[in-house]
Amino acid sequence: MSKVEDYIITIPDFPEPGVMFRDITGVLDSPEGLRLAIDELAGLLDGVEYDVIAGAEARGFIFGMPVAYKEGKKFVPIRKKGKLPRETVEKTYDLEYGTATIEIHKDAIKPGDRVVIVDDLIATGGTMKAAADLVEELGGKVVKMIFVIELEGLEGRKKLEGYDVDSVVKYPGK
Amino acid sequence: MSKVEDYIITIPDFPEPGVMFRDITGVLDSPEGLRLAIDELAGLLDGVEYDVIAGAEARGFIFGMPVAYKEGKKFVPIRKKGKLPRETVEKTYDLEYGTATIEIHKDAIKPGDRVVIVDDLIATGGTMKAAADLVEELGGKVVKMIFVIELEGLEGRKKLEGYDVDSVVKYPGK
Repeated sequence: MSKVEDYIITIPDFPEPGVMFRDITGVLDSPEGLRLAIDELAGLLDGVEYDVIAGAEARGFIFGMPVAYKEGKKFVPIRKKGKLPRETVEKTYDLEYGTATIEIHKDAIKPGDRVVIVDDLIATGGTMKAAADLVEELGGKVVKMIFVIELEGLEGRKKLEGYDVDSVVKYPGK
Repeated sequence: MSKVEDYIITIPDFPEPGVMFRDITGVLDSPEGLRLAIDELAGLLDGVEYDVIAGAEARGFIFGMPVAYKEGKKFVPIRKKGKLPRETVEKTYDLEYGTATIEIHKDAIKPGDRVVIVDDLIATGGTMKAAADLVEELGGKVVKMIFVIELEGLEGRKKLEGYDVDSVVKYPGK
């Protein structure tokens, strides 16, 4: 198999009827799939000038860290509330049911830093919008957002209008 | 700075008086610190024959994935209960207050797989023991456990007796 999408496992009707769940553990479960996914993600950054890779807990860590390692950049973890030990800024955003709060260390982004945000999947874009808000609150500039998988039917790009969004594998549905 | 420990931030009296919290975000916050930590972690595997890198949510993802990428191995995520979409086995273990449950996909480890478990820090060893139990329940063999930081005063090695444990930076205290 030589394409990232060959390694993605699709689970119909999970977590609820009508949803096609795209499971990235199949990508990780193969040395070739894992390498391909990281190399193609990093390839989306060709020609992009940036200082920092940021990723949101937990699957943003899975893909963000190896890209940072490969590209020789620093990595800023964006975490669920209460996990970071030093002074943070936080952002609460809406989920389908309820809300979630994420945090970033106040000193993790310096004014003027050019930041790339990495995640496994873009669905509605809610988490990524909150992550970008945190970066901008600290004076950073989000120069690109990259994803392994994009669910085009959920129109995450609409919520992320104005940002440069790119993905390795695009599914037309939800 | 040319040693991983130079990048670790120590926060006295967090989360409670008397505890010296070792914060690995300082390591990630520098391209040099990040590269050094991953290269030194991977160096602990010189001469080790293995098939799989496994890491527990969430900080095991941060260090496990780049080591897997660098070494050309697959990565198996061990997650908090309810996050993995396919059939799992789970393990509940004791925390200082209460319990936690972690899971692994049933098909992630094949009988006979030689597994390396990676985490940021070994404290009491509770999470790592539960992770090893899951690997073994699926027929895998834990050939090594590696950590960026070891808090020797918490005697995690005692709980992990019989396993090959190694770490990049050792602190004598708790």
